[in-house]
Amino acid sequence: MVGSVKDWSKLYSERRVDTIEGLKAFLRHKSVSTDPAFNDACNECANWLVEELKQAGLEVELLETGFKPVVYAKYDAEPDAPVVLFYGHYDVQPPDPLEAWESDPFDPVVRGDRLYARGAQDNKGQVWYFVSALKALLESQQLGCSVRLMIEGEEESGSEGLSAKLAEWKDRLQADVLVVCDTGALQAGQPTFTMGLRGMIGCTLKVIGPTHDLHSGVHGGIVRNPAIELTRLVSQLFAADGSIAVPGYYDGIATLTSEDQELMLATQIDPEWYQEQTGVLPVGGEEGLSIQERRGLRPTIDVNGLSSGYQGAGMKTIIPAEASAKITSRIVAGQDPARCLKLLMDFLSERAASGVRVEFSDACVGGPGLQLSTSSKLIQSVARVLEQLSNQPVAYIWEGASVPIVPALAAASGGEAVLVGFGLEADRIHAPNESFSLNQFELGFIYAGMLLEGLKREWL
Amino acid sequence: MVGSVKDWSKLYSERRVDTIEGLKAFLRHKSVSTDPAFNDACNECANWLVEELKQAGLEVELLETGFKPVVYAKYDAEPDAPVVLFYGHYDVQPPDPLEAWESDPFDPVVRGDRLYARGAQDNKGQVWYFVSALKALLESQQLGCSVRLMIEGEEESGSEGLSAKLAEWKDRLQADVLVVCDTGALQAGQPTFTMGLRGMIGCTLKVIGPTHDLHSGVHGGIVRNPAIELTRLVSQLFAADGSIAVPGYYDGIATLTSEDQELMLATQIDPEWYQEQTGVLPVGGEEGLSIQERRGLRPTIDVNGLSSGYQGAGMKTIIPAEASAKITSRIVAGQDPARCLKLLMDFLSERAASGVRVEFSDACVGGPGLQLSTSSKLIQSVARVLEQLSNQPVAYIWEGASVPIVPALAAASGGEAVLVGFGLEADRIHAPNESFSLNQFELGFIYAGMLLEGLKREWL
Repeated sequence: MVGSVKDWSKLYSERRVDTIEGLKAFLRHKSVSTDPAFNDACNECANWLVEELKQAGLEVELLETGFKPVVYAKYDAEPDAPVVLFYGHYDVQPPDPLEAWESDPFDPVVRGDRLYARGAQDNKGQVWYFVSALKALLESQQLGCSVRLMIEGEEESGSEGLSAKLAEWKDRLQADVLVVCDTGALQAGQPTFTMGLRGMIGCTLKVIGPTHDLHSGVHGGIVRNPAIELTRLVSQLFAADGSIAVPGYYDGIATLTSEDQELMLATQIDPEWYQEQTGVLPVGGEEGLSIQERRGLRPTIDVNGLSSGYQGAGMKTIIPAEASAKITSRIVAGQDPARCLKLLMDFLSERAASGVRVEFSDACVGGPGLQLSTSSKLIQSVARVLEQLSNQPVAYIWEGASVPIVPALAAASGGEAVLVGFGLEADRIHAPNESFSLNQFELGFIYAGMLLEGLKREWL
Repeated sequence: MVGSVKDWSKLYSERRVDTIEGLKAFLRHKSVSTDPAFNDACNECANWLVEELKQAGLEVELLETGFKPVVYAKYDAEPDAPVVLFYGHYDVQPPDPLEAWESDPFDPVVRGDRLYARGAQDNKGQVWYFVSALKALLESQQLGCSVRLMIEGEEESGSEGLSAKLAEWKDRLQADVLVVCDTGALQAGQPTFTMGLRGMIGCTLKVIGPTHDLHSGVHGGIVRNPAIELTRLVSQLFAADGSIAVPGYYDGIATLTSEDQELMLATQIDPEWYQEQTGVLPVGGEEGLSIQERRGLRPTIDVNGLSSGYQGAGMKTIIPAEASAKITSRIVAGQDPARCLKLLMDFLSERAASGVRVEFSDACVGGPGLQLSTSSKLIQSVARVLEQLSNQPVAYIWEGASVPIVPALAAASGGEAVLVGFGLEADRIHAPNESFSLNQFELGFIYAGMLLEGLKREWL
């Protein structure tokens, strides 16, 4: 018998305290993957997770990648049962700037109906409700499908290690359904399918001029200023209408069916609500397109950081020896990531002025975009679970963010992707004071439980 | 009887040891004006200088400015004698980075034919040869002109204190000739007139977007990126030919007489030599103009620093909440500094896109440019002194750097400016391991002595 929302809600109440304590323990690990200073913390976090999953009754392996280890866990139901592959990550973004946090990012604390910590939502919180529901099903022996968990430690820094191992680990990955919870809900309580993800590429552009900082009086007007050249190069990436000016960048972009196009536009994004959340109106990106399209169906190029010369108080009259920009680009289904990165870097290289040279580092091909469709039987079946979760209609969003490994995992596993997550904008992921709504956490637990309990071959 | 170069050279030999010891004592004072940690050292330096000048037979005052004190000294010759106002500064640049110094920046030491210390050239060394020659003339009672010394303690941090007092101190400043030695020579041994200085204005531009850093996937294409907007704004300051695109910025620029134009162009700047010094070819600034014009006769806008978002290792996929650029502009004679600053800030403000706002701080009106001419009788008379100094022809350069107080001092004193200095590029002023050539110091001593001894009313 499949449990109702009411049953799962009751079960959650009984297990709530232990479940949240478990999540707090998970969050105390400073598993920042981009900064080598946290290498040990990443390993400790992975090992902690291995023990937790073993205790839940799973067969667990710690898989080495040469970078951060991947936690792999397995449960086999009867041979004919559908196989679910769950993907998540135990690594988190750096907590900087530390002074902007109201409490220690690695000492999780509940304030109001939210749990505050780096990773509280992205992605430890969402991994944890899935793992907790799975544990409950294993304990009560109600799990009708086979499960594989693949929880990596490099999602925030490009998933290089896991990406390189996908072919080698093909057998471990083999699945019918790929479940990912690293996504958000349209609003509190509203079950939300993510129907698309953007891919990502990136690089650091450095413009190099003189061998040392020069006096801006003695040399101003003689030497090319690398900081100015950087602004000239970066600004040329965009046309006057906000579109990307790199020739060929839009080639091959996939389009939606007319039904999905309608669903996408049905998800309203209120500009005033957006301004309340962010402080600014949603006026970026390409002119003449809806917010939904600009976010989900169109590529973007963003500068994530700028650095050059003197940044202290007052002024220092120098021509800086160099200047750099951290650049990332979100790409969509149909665009070839490696090609886009090459187009981007060639565009910048070709436009470098005499008197400076450009260098690239941190070149990253994060993965392609992903586009799903409501014409899928699986999506329609999961939608029937989600419809029971609340009295709000199920939403379908074409997301702007990336989980670069997901399209590759879908291909390697053969599984059809289901992307349902319970994050909210208010969670401030990647920013100071990240948190996760405890109500959304509970919804996630119920969804995971009902999905795992209900999944049958007829859904596929 | 006016002494010849030979006489002055002999005199220098006799006094050399004591003179250099005096300079070393001057250099031991850590009179860094930009950093409040050195406030006491600045005061001690000023008081030390007061005593030295008293002992030389001058009437000395320590003038308070509310910031760093100004050392003022006076000698009156007969009432009809021409009056010389000498301007210099006892403050120095910070010595950072300390680890790059081969010896303690405040423990002067002679290595080879150079004296190494912070301020060895800029400006203590050049002040000291002038003061030493003056002392010699006072001792031998050969001084035929009246002298005022105005040695300030804030040149390296904007001369605010002195600037504010110019009107109040008008009587003290009254002079026929303003002598400044805070300039350089074209090459070792070549007597060099600085015929122009650029003025300076500046501000810090900040582009402010969302209230906090946003996830570049979730918000990319929706929100305006402040770092990109900053590059768009800054890059628009320049036309394709490298000229400044701010309308009206070039209004009123003074031009040279055809004779001075010829003298300016006679001073060759070898591109290969320039590349050896800086690592880059001199290809910046406006197309189609000579290096000399671009440096000395044309305004420039430079970015001294850029700052935005994530600047650490690897990548952080954010849309930064804000981005800033430190901007300074060198302006030339004929341009109104306050007007130029307003034009610059208005230009940037008016072009700010929707979804971001711009803010300015550190607004600075440093002073106008200065342009002298060889048609002046005084310059021609001083040139006759300089012609005797070495077997190299006298050079005339239109300098790109600024000594912001000089044009204001010329106006307040009524004195005609004479700018001859003996600094060399190899002195590395403002950088680690600053030094001053002892040969150039001696030339400075001889020049100062012959100038003070020879100056007569007929020169004016």
